[in-house]
Amino acid sequence: MKKMGANIVVIGGGTGSFTLLQGIKRYTRDITALVNMADDGSSTGQLRDELGVLPPGDVRQCLVALSDTPKVRDLFSYRFEEGSFKGHAFGNLFLTALEKMTGSFGEAVELASDVLKINGRVEPVTFTNVQLCAEGTDGHPIRGQHTIAHQAIATRPKIWLEPEAAANSKATKAILEADMVVIAPGNLYGSLAPALVINGIQMALKKTKATCVFVCNLVTKPGPTDGFSVIDFANEIERLAGSKFLDYVVFNNDMPSKELMDRYAHDGEFGVKYDLAELKKQHYQFRAVPILAKSTWMGMQASDPLAHSRSLIRHDPDAVARQLMRIYFT
Amino acid sequence: MKKMGANIVVIGGGTGSFTLLQGIKRYTRDITALVNMADDGSSTGQLRDELGVLPPGDVRQCLVALSDTPKVRDLFSYRFEEGSFKGHAFGNLFLTALEKMTGSFGEAVELASDVLKINGRVEPVTFTNVQLCAEGTDGHPIRGQHTIAHQAIATRPKIWLEPEAAANSKATKAILEADMVVIAPGNLYGSLAPALVINGIQMALKKTKATCVFVCNLVTKPGPTDGFSVIDFANEIERLAGSKFLDYVVFNNDMPSKELMDRYAHDGEFGVKYDLAELKKQHYQFRAVPILAKSTWMGMQASDPLAHSRSLIRHDPDAVARQLMRIYFT
Repeated sequence: MKKMGANIVVIGGGTGSFTLLQGIKRYTRDITALVNMADDGSSTGQLRDELGVLPPGDVRQCLVALSDTPKVRDLFSYRFEEGSFKGHAFGNLFLTALEKMTGSFGEAVELASDVLKINGRVEPVTFTNVQLCAEGTDGHPIRGQHTIAHQAIATRPKIWLEPEAAANSKATKAILEADMVVIAPGNLYGSLAPALVINGIQMALKKTKATCVFVCNLVTKPGPTDGFSVIDFANEIERLAGSKFLDYVVFNNDMPSKELMDRYAHDGEFGVKYDLAELKKQHYQFRAVPILAKSTWMGMQASDPLAHSRSLIRHDPDAVARQLMRIYFT
Repeated sequence: MKKMGANIVVIGGGTGSFTLLQGIKRYTRDITALVNMADDGSSTGQLRDELGVLPPGDVRQCLVALSDTPKVRDLFSYRFEEGSFKGHAFGNLFLTALEKMTGSFGEAVELASDVLKINGRVEPVTFTNVQLCAEGTDGHPIRGQHTIAHQAIATRPKIWLEPEAAANSKATKAILEADMVVIAPGNLYGSLAPALVINGIQMALKKTKATCVFVCNLVTKPGPTDGFSVIDFANEIERLAGSKFLDYVVFNNDMPSKELMDRYAHDGEFGVKYDLAELKKQHYQFRAVPILAKSTWMGMQASDPLAHSRSLIRHDPDAVARQLMRIYFT
């Protein structure tokens, strides 16, 4: 096959992957987005409950990020505002109808990829219909991604899927053949863990010759990652994946405005700290770089997935992508 | 523009147009389906009520008939079987989401046409959000296509739209520029009248140099067309359109099996009669031809729009199309 630039795999799902993919697609067309399949909240949760389908929401966001056809892309992100469909993103209904019709979520994602004219591929990490489980502060299991997000889970908790997930062979193959594997920023236990704890994914991450990079979150949230530093995040990524597979950690060293930081602090969210002396002792290399977005969300269409996020402190897609390309060309 | 075969316009909506378009598209790519906008039942009715959109159902069927991409075509016809979306055809949600997003039903139809890779064009006869009205047996108005279908309306009733509809200029232009205009078989007062009573459409039918053909229904239904002959149907088409615009009437002279006829008779439905001597006295020419479908619906996919119709006595799409081409080449 003709080389189309760096072969990059992004692991995650949701807003973090969306940002990364939007940036990376400017520099290579050989991208595979691997998407966790644990989402069970809001529109996605209702579709899973009512129709027994696999979760479409994070897959939809990755498809939209890689799409090259503005109108269909906007349509996929469009959310009904009234009636029986209120709150449902159209792309979720598209994937759901296709899965029900064909009986295969994989086929649904393929056809959606055609219709959206995407660059690259989107692959669910598993086709097992799983539920995310986490150890609660009292040691008992908490089940369901949405529930886990709203209950007290233990520090450095056990995380597992029920039933045990079989890795999608196209996902493991993508990791094994990649030049670079990027762990996207995102909800550590809700979005990254459900991909990293799958045995087949763990084996592939351990075995791949790809340069493995973690792009660290910008802020900590109240709960189990409260007060986490860059090293804490990276350590947890590797603990969940079961191996010291990281080659690089990329994190932001720029400061948001005081006004923004105060607003975040009010919600118990703080910039992720880093200690350069400690980072130098780790087995991975690091890049402390200014990768904060400068612009605001003003003028963004309501249908843009990011418009529903209130993440004003966020990554600049292009700045992150350029850092990844610098690592690739090192 | 390069000539792509006969330039044919089909007026109607629903199953009759679906059958005709499927046949005609084998012989020309220059087809325009003009669709009535009065549907307010089932999935379409619910979407109009809840979201205030224009009726997507008949447009969807015409798009599907002209589509060249089997999987997306099947997806558009797929109906949800459970959950909050039960009964909704996916294509209806597609058109509805697009109309809500863009604020334009015309744009929605255009984008759907691209995604479905259709041959030809589909044009709503109007973008006015109308309600079909008919004179009841007691002389009072009955409002709403769905209601009209279930209540007693007068014989040769007054039919009008509220508010008065402005014809879609692309629809009138298509009629004026066509080589042939075909009035599809279908529900006379429910599906054909709401296109024919629009002033701009009437003017175009009167003015066009196209050969105007009516493909007559196969059976009469209980109600105002009970006992109608081919001439009765043709007369009503011209009364509703306000001019004697027909050049040809094509009707079936083949006999369904006795078993099928008995089954239909049980529901008060009978083959449309014709009187060749009387037909010879009319201002239009006619073709009495065997255009009944021989095959049964066995093996048809549940997602096929016709599978939900119980029309076992139906037109053979290819046989009808070949008759139209014979007229065109006369």
